[in-house]
Formats: sequence, structure tokens, C-alpha cells
Amino acid sequence: MTVPTAPPTAPVSLISPRWLAPVADGPAVLTGQTVVVQGTQIAAVMAREAALQAYPQASRIDLDEHLLIPGLINAHTHAAMALLRGTADDLPLERWLHERIWPMEGALMSEAFVYDGSVLACREMLMGGITTFSDMYFFPESTAKAALDLGMRAAVGIIVIDFPSAYGSGPQDYLAKGLKLRDSLRHEPTIGFTLSPHAPYSVGDAALADVARLSAELQMPVHIHVHETAREVAEHVARHGVRPLARLAALGLVNPELIGVHAVHLDGADIRLLANHGASVVHCPHSNLKLASGIGPAVARLLKEGVNVAIGTDGSASNNRLDLIAETRTACLLAKGLSGDAAAFNAHQALRAATLGGARALGMQDRIGSIEPGKAADLVAVDLTDDGLATFHDPVAHLVYSATNQQVSDVWVNGQSVVVKRQMVHARALDAVAAVRARNVVWHNRLGQFVPGNVRA
Amino acid sequence: MTVPTAPPTAPVSLISPRWLAPVADGPAVLTGQTVVVQGTQIAAVMAREAALQAYPQASRIDLDEHLLIPGLINAHTHAAMALLRGTADDLPLERWLHERIWPMEGALMSEAFVYDGSVLACREMLMGGITTFSDMYFFPESTAKAALDLGMRAAVGIIVIDFPSAYGSGPQDYLAKGLKLRDSLRHEPTIGFTLSPHAPYSVGDAALADVARLSAELQMPVHIHVHETAREVAEHVARHGVRPLARLAALGLVNPELIGVHAVHLDGADIRLLANHGASVVHCPHSNLKLASGIGPAVARLLKEGVNVAIGTDGSASNNRLDLIAETRTACLLAKGLSGDAAAFNAHQALRAATLGGARALGMQDRIGSIEPGKAADLVAVDLTDDGLATFHDPVAHLVYSATNQQVSDVWVNGQSVVVKRQMVHARALDAVAAVRARNVVWHNRLGQFVPGNVRA
Repeated sequence: MTVPTAPPTAPVSLISPRWLAPVADGPAVLTGQTVVVQGTQIAAVMAREAALQAYPQASRIDLDEHLLIPGLINAHTHAAMALLRGTADDLPLERWLHERIWPMEGALMSEAFVYDGSVLACREMLMGGITTFSDMYFFPESTAKAALDLGMRAAVGIIVIDFPSAYGSGPQDYLAKGLKLRDSLRHEPTIGFTLSPHAPYSVGDAALADVARLSAELQMPVHIHVHETAREVAEHVARHGVRPLARLAALGLVNPELIGVHAVHLDGADIRLLANHGASVVHCPHSNLKLASGIGPAVARLLKEGVNVAIGTDGSASNNRLDLIAETRTACLLAKGLSGDAAAFNAHQALRAATLGGARALGMQDRIGSIEPGKAADLVAVDLTDDGLATFHDPVAHLVYSATNQQVSDVWVNGQSVVVKRQMVHARALDAVAAVRARNVVWHNRLGQFVPGNVRA
Repeated sequence: MTVPTAPPTAPVSLISPRWLAPVADGPAVLTGQTVVVQGTQIAAVMAREAALQAYPQASRIDLDEHLLIPGLINAHTHAAMALLRGTADDLPLERWLHERIWPMEGALMSEAFVYDGSVLACREMLMGGITTFSDMYFFPESTAKAALDLGMRAAVGIIVIDFPSAYGSGPQDYLAKGLKLRDSLRHEPTIGFTLSPHAPYSVGDAALADVARLSAELQMPVHIHVHETAREVAEHVARHGVRPLARLAALGLVNPELIGVHAVHLDGADIRLLANHGASVVHCPHSNLKLASGIGPAVARLLKEGVNVAIGTDGSASNNRLDLIAETRTACLLAKGLSGDAAAFNAHQALRAATLGGARALGMQDRIGSIEPGKAADLVAVDLTDDGLATFHDPVAHLVYSATNQQVSDVWVNGQSVVVKRQMVHARALDAVAAVRARNVVWHNRLGQFVPGNVRA
């Protein structure tokens, strides 16, 4: 897909932050620069004085104590699960699934459930500087609608799984519904799609072969949970004779379109396979730890061997925050602790993973992920002036190691200003959130029946 | 030390939160309860209606959307290092020490440096719900003054180290100065002391024997870095023939007064030694990961074998936030990831470690760490009503897994209200912070000379 050229008459905004981290070639942090936004696009990055002269009629946004970064990309979530936050804490994975998540989903899953949960998740993500999310869930039309209502960019997953649900009867039905949805939304510039087979253990060869064929035909990314737990890998070997990634490779799925989520348990051959075929890994450290899947992949080694790394929050039932700044910090800390090298996965590499790494995983690196002319204006301003923490020397390191997502002050998606001084500004988004909040107590009471010892009511 | 009985005429406040987590025997979360504070103490915890009848003249503080918890106890920090935040990110430990921390400390260390850094740290900690901190640094008189100015409770460390500094010439001098300081502040109810020998590798047998004798004579805790890195343990074995904890045991230091900080590298014998002698471990997960010391101690195993566990932030140069809620969350997540058991170190155990565990480590479990009659009124109210995250079923799990320290709204230390609706309220504290902020730019510029590539100026 090419970036549509903004008409020369599109309004121009000049965004002048104190610090700019473009995540591009050249210096990691710039000062005195202005980002020129025309229509949906970044038209230029230039010295502030020159920008003011070149665009005397433009609106000016001065961010005197802010770091401007590319919009954060949450490369893996199940947005609708925001409604399930706190329903299954401190439970082993089997009980987490069998006693909580599956019964609740079985009882409540619907278009309305997915829409309401996704609105809550989109609000949380957007306010925390996430401009794009890659999702996997049932009723993806509701996820897409939530993203459109809130003004976020989304890579909506066309889910494929061997068992039926309220949403569909099986792989063929899921694919047909998903492709139809994709077709109906192809005019929306901020909505893209991935093929999202759930996992190698929950999708059989026939459906995976269909996914591989569609991915090649339609140039669509394939977004799939892989090697999340040691048990899953061992059971796969027992059943199929090979590790899951080897089976995916045999089915033609290990290539630059592959987005392997979690990838906690990788051996050397797995890593070489991913690296040699240009695949991506989404690291979801909080979820991997909280569900006791393991400490996570060796990110420093993945990068060294050439695997593209993105960062994801996973869903709210296993995290419990959709906070990519916190997630990125934990990714950095774990990479150091695991490798024994405090220089491993430094703050600048981490910001790259949380932006351009996500864009590359989604095949969108030509459109988003960095602040460069010609890319879409997905931008985030972070106010670094909390006085109590004001001693810093590298604003990117301060962002990664010290800041919180509550310091995100302004957000633009595709050139649209969607958050200003920590307030969402569009009536459509505000209306959507207000409506969901009014319904939230109903969901909460219904979900509470599945949670013994619920003390909220 | 006994708790002074409040005079019957001391003013009474009735604090009525929506949820109360007393960290005591009985239900983990209570509703409809009021904490009766008289003078410096908790006089009672009782049903709200009964409290209103019993104390009709009392002032009433209704916290309708808040969880009230015991004040958090940061069981290990170097508060003054708040000035060094961001000066040494992403560096291996040797370069961290030799190129940054030691040269900066050598050039700048003074009473003024320690006071100013400690004021910034106390502000950050207090606003984040930490009511007590255990410190280790030079010029402890400045740390004590900062704690007094900000109205925090502190366990000030009497540092002991074999090398000289701007503060003192060696172990005897450090001990003499520290004990004199302790004597001069013995009338301050919120200032206590620990003996704080730096580490087994930096303090010789003679000084450690002095520490052991003083600890026994004065019933003082001994707060020491132990088994932080694998290299330190190996070098100790090469030099002394035994692991560090075994040498401390031979010197009479492994007993209920021992506060072993970090303890990342423990074998089974080390754990049994700590458990059998009633010693405590302070887990500082962010620092251990960031400096690549390792993944941290196996907290679930420590608790199972009976070792008291507390949580610490360490200093700002290796963390970089003095945020005990985030630190506790990471401790939970790591415990699960390390043990492979998602039920390990659950949210309630974690809150206990961050409160009563810290109190027990400091020998203050009779005075602080839980909300019970007779204890000092060190209390923290956390506003759980961020709408975007409002779906929860257990307020303690929500605090640990979803909340941030910016949701701390009200803080009491020793019965004094020190933070109200996220504002510090005492003139002495506000004046101290304002004065330090005015000087902060000077420290920042001087420190910036040690940080190549500093882009802030």
C-alpha cells in the first residue's frame, strides 16, 4: 500500500517538541526541530525557525517540556479482554483457562462484549501513547468499530481456531467472516488486518495451509501464539514429531509475514529459523511472567541473530495493564537479567522495538513506526517534567526507565489530534467511552459471578 | 521500644475507606470499617456506624473509592542517589561504578548533596505511598534531616565501609559518627537506625565484629548487601574459603537482626541458614535486573522455607523509580516466572512483604506494617477509580497488578496527615522541596559533565 499524498491545500500543523526521538537513521535525540504535519502525513522534519518561515499560516503546537516519539505499537493484545481484568489473578494456567476465562467467555461472548471491552482497552492504550494495536479475538468487527470510534490504528486479527464459538463454527467460517469484514473496511485508512490463527496446538494443518495460501495471495501478516509454554512445545513434539515452529515452516508459514507471539521457549534452531526467514517475535514479558510461562525469550540474542522484535501487552486478563511503556521497561530489565549484560537491550533499542519493530512485524514499516517525511503522522508527546524525577541526561532512557504512561500528554493518529493535554477530544470517542462506562457495571456484576470472593459488589 | 500511649485528649480522626486491607489476621479485605486514629496511634478498627457514635466530635475522612493499606516500607534504598538518576543507564556494573557512580560521588559528595538528593527521594517515596524507608549512604545526618523535613519515617543506616570518603576516614570513624547521630536524634519518634556495613567484600572482619557486638548490645538491625552478584560470591569463596553468608554467620551476624539485601545468588544452604536464624531478605528486583546481577532470589522458595521477605527499590541510579508498587508487582511476576507456578507469591503475600515484611526486617513489627490497634498510624489511601481500569474483583490484586503509585491520594505518618489528595500539606516539607528544586539545576549541570552525550543542557 502506498501513502496517499496529502493535497497541497491540507492544513499544516507545526509540532515543536523540546526533544525529538525520530527512531530513524541519524542522531537518536534531536532538539530545536519541528515536525511538519500536512493532512495525514509527516511532510518534513526541519529546524524550528525554518519551519516557522516556510509555513507562516500553519497552526503551531509548542511542547516545551516534552519528548516527541513515534506512536507506540502494541504488537499483541486481545483488547476485548479489558472486561476480564482482575477476574483470574494468581491462578495457574490450567485453572486460569478452565475455571475462569473459558467459562466467562462462554457465557458472555457477543458482539456487544467485544465492542465494550475493546472501547475500554482502546481508551487505555490511546491515553498511554499507543497509536496502533494488533489484535486477536472473536467478533473482530466489534474490535474494528471500537478502534474507529476512538480514532486508533488497528491491525485487526482474522481469528482462526479449530473449535466453534459464539462468533463462528470453525476455521472456514472464521476465515470467510474475517475476509468479508476486511473487504467491507478496505476504505478505512487506519484499519488493517492480519490472519490470526490462534496457535499451532489449536489449529490443524488444513486450516494452517489455508492461512499460508491466503497470506501469500493477499500479502497479509500471520499473527499466531507460538512456543508460549514448555509444555505446549513438548506436547507438540509428542503429537507431530517436530517443534511447533518446524511444523509452521513445513506449512510455508515461516517467512517475513510471520508474527510469532510470546516465543518464550526457543532453542538455537528455532532462532535461526526465524532469523533466516525474516520473521518477527512479539515479546509480552508481563503476561509470560504472570502466567508462569517462563522468563521470556532472550531478546538480546534474538536481536543479535537478526530477528525483528516487537513488544506486546497481551490481554488484560494476564497482565493487567495495557501499558507499553511499562512493558518495554520490563523487556529491557529482563534482557539484562537474563543475559548477564547490563548493556543488553538498551533504552534506544527498546524504543525501536516498541515502535518500528512493531511496524515491521505488521508489514507497515513504510507507513508508521518512525518520524520521517512521508510516513503517517502517528505521534506521541510525553511530558518529562515531573519535578520529582527531573534529573535526567538522556530523554529516551528517562522515558524507558523512569517515566510512566500517565505522562503521555498529546497523541496524533494519522494526522488527527486525538488526545490533547491528557484529554480525548473527539465527540465520537467521548460518546463511545461514556456509553461503555454506563454498561460496565452490568458486565462487572455478570463477571463477578465467576469470581469467588469478589468483594467489590 | 514501646508505643507511647496517646493522651486521652489527643484529637481523633475517623478514616473510613471503601476497602480496608489491614495486613493482619482475619479477612484480607474489609468493607464498612473505620480506622480510629488518636494522636500518633491507631486506637481501633471498627464498624463505621459504631465509630461515628463512639466519637461524635472526631474529624471524619471518608474515602469513598479508596483502598486503605498500611504505609509501604521501602526496605532498601540510597535516597541521596535520586540526584544520580539517569547518569548511568545501560552500563555494565564495572563501568557503572568506575566511570560514573564513583567519580560523581568523589567529586560531589557532601552534606548538601545527600540532603538535596534525599529530599527529592523522600518526596517521590511519600507521594507514592512509602511511609518508611531503610537507607544506606554517607552523611546519614542529611538523610535524617530530609526525612524529618518531609515527615517520613526512616531507618537511617550507620554506614561502615573499609575505605575513606568525604564523610569519614574508615570504620571506626563511621561508627563513631553514626552512633553520635543516633544519640542526638533519639527523641525523634520517626527516626530509627540500623548498622549498615556495606557488604562482605568491602568490610573486613574487624569492623564486622564491631558491628556484631554493637548490634547485640544495642539491639540494632544489621543492614548489608549480600550475594548480589555471582562474581562477588565466587571471589569471596576464593579469598575467604566460604560463601559470604557463612562468613557473616561465623562472625555472629546471621540472626533475626540481619537484613540481607539483594540475596540474588543463594544456594540451599544459604536459604536454610537464613531461615533457621530468623533473618530477613530484601528483594530489589528492578535493580538486580537492571545491573544484570541476575533474575533475583526465588521468593516463593524463601517464603516456603520461612525466610522473611521485604521489598526495596535500591537507589535511583539502578532502578530508576522509587516506586514500591511497581517493585512489588515485578517481584510477584518474577516469582511466578522463576517458579513456573502462577499462584506463587500472590498479591496478598506481596502486599504483606511490602508492609509487614519490611517492618519485621527492621524489627519494627510491633509498631508499623499493619493496621491494628496500638500500632502507629502509618496509612496510605489509594484511589482505585481510574475509570479505564475500573473492572476489578479484589482490590488488593488490583493494587498490585493494575494500579500505579500515582493513584496514592492520602498518606499519614505517625498519625500526621502528610499528603492530602496528592498534595503535600506541611509548610516545612513544601519549603524543603522548593529549596531543593531551585538547586537541582546546579547539581544537574555538575553531574552532566560526567555523562557523555548529555542532551539536556
